[in-house]
Amino acid sequence: MAKKKASAVPAVQDWPGGLVTQVAGFRTATMHCGIKSKPGNPDLALLVCDQAAAAAGVFTTNLVHAAPVRVSKAALKAGKGTARAVVINAGNANACTGEQGERDAEAMAALTAKALGCKPAQVLVCSTGIIGHKMPMEKVERGIAELSSRIKQKGEQGDFARAIMTTDIVPKTAAATVEIDGVKVHVAGACKGSGMIAPRMATMLGFVVTDADIAPKALQAAMSDVADETFNCVTVDGDTSTNDTLLCMASGRAGNKALKTAKGPEYEGFRAALYAVCDSLAKQIAADGEGAQHTITLYVGGAKNDATAKTIARAIAESPLVKTAIAGCDPNWGRIMAAAGRSGGAFDPETSSLTVQGIELFRGGTPTKFDAAQVSEALKNREVGIVLMVGDGPGRAKFYTCDLTHGYIEINADYHT
Amino acid sequence: MAKKKASAVPAVQDWPGGLVTQVAGFRTATMHCGIKSKPGNPDLALLVCDQAAAAAGVFTTNLVHAAPVRVSKAALKAGKGTARAVVINAGNANACTGEQGERDAEAMAALTAKALGCKPAQVLVCSTGIIGHKMPMEKVERGIAELSSRIKQKGEQGDFARAIMTTDIVPKTAAATVEIDGVKVHVAGACKGSGMIAPRMATMLGFVVTDADIAPKALQAAMSDVADETFNCVTVDGDTSTNDTLLCMASGRAGNKALKTAKGPEYEGFRAALYAVCDSLAKQIAADGEGAQHTITLYVGGAKNDATAKTIARAIAESPLVKTAIAGCDPNWGRIMAAAGRSGGAFDPETSSLTVQGIELFRGGTPTKFDAAQVSEALKNREVGIVLMVGDGPGRAKFYTCDLTHGYIEINADYHT
Repeated sequence: MAKKKASAVPAVQDWPGGLVTQVAGFRTATMHCGIKSKPGNPDLALLVCDQAAAAAGVFTTNLVHAAPVRVSKAALKAGKGTARAVVINAGNANACTGEQGERDAEAMAALTAKALGCKPAQVLVCSTGIIGHKMPMEKVERGIAELSSRIKQKGEQGDFARAIMTTDIVPKTAAATVEIDGVKVHVAGACKGSGMIAPRMATMLGFVVTDADIAPKALQAAMSDVADETFNCVTVDGDTSTNDTLLCMASGRAGNKALKTAKGPEYEGFRAALYAVCDSLAKQIAADGEGAQHTITLYVGGAKNDATAKTIARAIAESPLVKTAIAGCDPNWGRIMAAAGRSGGAFDPETSSLTVQGIELFRGGTPTKFDAAQVSEALKNREVGIVLMVGDGPGRAKFYTCDLTHGYIEINADYHT
Repeated sequence: MAKKKASAVPAVQDWPGGLVTQVAGFRTATMHCGIKSKPGNPDLALLVCDQAAAAAGVFTTNLVHAAPVRVSKAALKAGKGTARAVVINAGNANACTGEQGERDAEAMAALTAKALGCKPAQVLVCSTGIIGHKMPMEKVERGIAELSSRIKQKGEQGDFARAIMTTDIVPKTAAATVEIDGVKVHVAGACKGSGMIAPRMATMLGFVVTDADIAPKALQAAMSDVADETFNCVTVDGDTSTNDTLLCMASGRAGNKALKTAKGPEYEGFRAALYAVCDSLAKQIAADGEGAQHTITLYVGGAKNDATAKTIARAIAESPLVKTAIAGCDPNWGRIMAAAGRSGGAFDPETSSLTVQGIELFRGGTPTKFDAAQVSEALKNREVGIVLMVGDGPGRAKFYTCDLTHGYIEINADYHT
């Protein structure tokens, strides 16, 4: 968080219902081109900026990364942080597909570029779905042609957030506004979850657009910084995907005085709006985690530093025993302390305290006297808050996760290749 | 593994049905003293050596460790690597119980020592069960008195492996023999699983006894070394317990020429017998993992070094997506490669190959053509073998785990505090 005077940083406003397509300069189109087997299920989307936009990306750290990740990284580099469009498909991850997969991802960029009249390096590519299957390129090629033509002729919008879903149950969108130099700047985003979620650099797929006028380097700084505090603090199952990609494009249409560097109150204001959008999207991913019946917000405070707090929080958020206890509305706090203890983050149980749903369960090495039935009842709420204070240090972290239920097993034992 | 000539190291023999109580010098007694609510369910056990035995221990690395772990560590130090007895209870972990817990664990050692006529520092203490509950010391005190008297009067044996179970379905024992200097040396052990299993130093509770004549330092070296390749390569749910303890006691009754140091073919022969016993116990833990329907043996080879192979293997073995795929008999190999890729262990997917149930699914960055129905059918076998070769390096690791099923959720969402 910024250490500036509060008055110097512009205040961020909620923008209820704000959509990617309501940000000046951006248009989308979506369709079912046939990658997913169920007819009517959208599986292809285009996100296009009317002119070259400043662009920033954060990508998976998985060594096994998908072809579109490599193609998008290369494009951002070649385009010097600018881009015109993103082409996205669901239903096929184009990962572990060898040289053919590489050629297919490059072809998706080239086909989109040709249809829009720009260079292939101005087009980013994202894929999500099953690993190890060849892309059905004939269907994709027809789809890209149709979506490009729809956008050019009718400026079609489509339900972008729904077109990028895989096992997600609900589409995920968030939006915020901030006033910079007396000009209203808009930030809106959409993303998908909901399994293989433990981003170490970005979530599965996330897209944020803004009409801010901002230099590519400043945009990349804001994006990397915010991703670390939001998407990198979500886990559904501890499995970091091969395709994680978070992209941000800025059209510059708001007309603010250009943000040229990653400092100053105006930059901090923009960063805060970006944070509000990404934080909301991150929490929505946890809430729609595969099989989730509880959304868990976990705060760890009082640690030596933020990194230690995050290490402890991640271990608790990934613990199957903690997640099944919450599924069963069971105040089994011993599992939370055991997960913290094995995390690798240094702390002293004797100076720790643990609160679940606002009720203290443990302090200073021993259990607090509490009414287990009361805590169980409180855990029937879908929203669960856990606060673990491990000392009086300055380090803190917030993590979003969900419980582990029969639904997760059903989805993942039956999702056949 | 030893780099000696094979002929120099004595051959280890299976000892089918061999029990802790059949090793010269050791006796056990077990009972239901009332810690567990269900009558007849054994919950207290004594393991006693007729004289002071060489003793070695490996303990949990969890920062939140239970009172009996601290007491046993201190006793091993004070006793200079010798011990007379171990008192073990199931149903209560005596963890997160503050100073009272510490006093209770010390009292368990003192009561046992008094009854057996030795010093408290000659008695080790192990507890397993729920975290954060006060020990019912009146019941424990009566129980220790009764068990000590039974051992002294009748040399009673009891079903030791069953008395240490919690959610385990089957008791776990293993035994082996090896000839040292023309003398037959026996090694036998018992352990418990079956949730909160991801030992980083030892398993939940494991006990191995031998009649070998071996110096405490050599015994500790063998135990630490073997634990690292066996119990430390098992995971059920990635949750390292607060109570993990592996103890080994040597009575010296075999009459072999004493093993004074951790080298030479005789020591290697003893170490091999210890390895055989611990490896079998480790695999039994995975097989009886909470809700397990498949036992998975995972080999990772060709890595830069053993540590890298182990890092990759652990990530695959802990992946909920891999474990649910196996539960569903689904050859979803992309999840295995994705878990390997996020593990943090360095390798090149382009030089990797993956085999499941003997069928190659992936090689050199692209899927092999395989018959998915045939692999699915092969995965109906309870025993699953996965081999991932990541290059041509010398590093290798073996890991045992189980699948993730509805049974795990049932056990852990309903196991109320």
